[in-house]
Amino acid sequence: MSDFKQRVQASFDRQEFMKTLGARIVSIAPGQVEIGWPFQSNLTQQHGFLHAGVVAAVADSACGYAALSLMPEGVAVLSVEFKVNLLRPAAGAHFRAVGKVIRPGRTLTVCAAEVHSAVPGNESVIAIMQATMMAVRDNTELVD
Amino acid sequence: MSDFKQRVQASFDRQEFMKTLGARIVSIAPGQVEIGWPFQSNLTQQHGFLHAGVVAAVADSACGYAALSLMPEGVAVLSVEFKVNLLRPAAGAHFRAVGKVIRPGRTLTVCAAEVHSAVPGNESVIAIMQATMMAVRDNTELVD
Amino acid sequence: MSDFKQRVQASFDRQEFMKTLGARIVSIAPGQVEIGWPFQSNLTQQHGFLHAGVVAAVADSACGYAALSLMPEGVAVLSVEFKVNLLRPAAGAHFRAVGKVIRPGRTLTVCAAEVHSAVPGNESVIAIMQATMMAVRDNTELVD
Amino acid sequence: MSDFKQRVQASFDRQEFMKTLGARIVSIAPGQVEIGWPFQSNLTQQHGFLHAGVVAAVADSACGYAALSLMPEGVAVLSVEFKVNLLRPAAGAHFRAVGKVIRPGRTLTVCAAEVHSAVPGNESVIAIMQATMMAVRDNTELVD
Repeated sequence: MSDFKQRVQASFDRQEFMKTLGARIVSIAPGQVEIGWPFQSNLTQQHGFLHAGVVAAVADSACGYAALSLMPEGVAVLSVEFKVNLLRPAAGAHFRAVGKVIRPGRTLTVCAAEVHSAVPGNESVIAIMQATMMAVRDNTELVD
Repeated sequence: MSDFKQRVQASFDRQEFMKTLGARIVSIAPGQVEIGWPFQSNLTQQHGFLHAGVVAAVADSACGYAALSLMPEGVAVLSVEFKVNLLRPAAGAHFRAVGKVIRPGRTLTVCAAEVHSAVPGNESVIAIMQATMMAVRDNTELVD
Repeated sequence: MSDFKQRVQASFDRQEFMKTLGARIVSIAPGQVEIGWPFQSNLTQQHGFLHAGVVAAVADSACGYAALSLMPEGVAVLSVEFKVNLLRPAAGAHFRAVGKVIRPGRTLTVCAAEVHSAVPGNESVIAIMQATMMAVRDNTELVD
Repeated sequence: MSDFKQRVQASFDRQEFMKTLGARIVSIAPGQVEIGWPFQSNLTQQHGFLHAGVVAAVADSACGYAALSLMPEGVAVLSVEFKVNLLRPAAGAHFRAVGKVIRPGRTLTVCAAEVHSAVPGNESVIAIMQATMMAVRDNTELVD
């Protein structure tokens, strides 16, 4: 596994919240990361759909790791801001978020993500995100 | 407890994800809802702070219920979109999100939220949200 | 020219602000509209680049008309909200914004836009937008 | 006039687009800038209201200059991203945008703005913005 893949995977493995969601990395490419996770009844909002915050959380991680995959060693990634449009109720058995770098930069990286919902025989986009990630340097307490 | 308070509380109690986060409603007023929750190590990102998605999730619920508190009976609330700026790392022992209605409407309600982090003797704003909520009518499957 | 094209063009022609910007429609397809405009020195910010508000304005019109192109007759389109990330300084001789419908709906339509800057021999994306448009019905004062 | 006021005013005076809109600075305080402008028929969208892009443009300038008012000398300000919710049609004779710093930072400053519309005897908030501004250093071509 190449260095950037190991680095992204290792950082993702430290995100305890992704474990809570049952999320795992599906694929890592330069500037693109996909994360998948199953429906769980402890992640729902009042109508039984996935909570929008769960959708946003995984999309945010996918964006953040897409950004980190292009950052030099010794730099940490932090979310500056993100914006989500929820296109459909988050119903389904399995979900995946694909985060992509739209514009890499030394300090700021702009990303976009799509979140897909899958039921057998059908898949649809349930949310889109536009996000800004920041490379944090010279902070010995924060890495990756 | 007034009708709108009961209605908001009952809907919140059906959000299984808020239970997963350990979140509870602190106060409900017309057009304003506050939700509090403690730090939990299973909600963290890679540096040990709360995951931005957790912060967004509670802010989204606070906005949604602020909106619902002003909606007529028989209408369900859904999140259309939200945008979060993360102002500081989400460190702290306890957190609270205050959601407010900025502009109520028959179909769309615009809300804003602030998320605060508390450590003994100190509190700071760690995130702000601007969000659009929708009143869903004539859908017999969705209420509140 | 098909009905939806005529309708979009006629509404665009009533946007006096687009005339002020020197903007014109380049193409109209179902769910996609492209608008182009030249650099003008009266549209700049303090460093001599196009003002971000100009970039946002044309992207917003491109999104709005992409949405209107799919709406039934007798409905007016209004912008609910939009979010822009500015990827590069808006330098160049000519600009174009391409707005696309990501998710059409009876009431709300979610769109995305890219804004491109062109100098001879080179083109780059300078901004991306994620936007929500609303179909306004039963308002006899507003059309298209 | 204090240094930060002079600096903000001088930079604003170089924004040719603000002249095109007929906008002028109403007040400058540390971390807060207000800009006013009159209705003009060459700034409208298809229904005769101010174009949302005009509203966004002035709100963006108000946020940018609120941020610049707190930045050290020799640093330039650029808009990273902004998000606008349009609360009411932009009708009225006069408008003003108030931009405030919510969270200053060495590199990034988060701001919020409200845009007000005034008709004789009445004023209402027509839009709110949440924005990220960036301090650009060590770029000899960009100042303020």
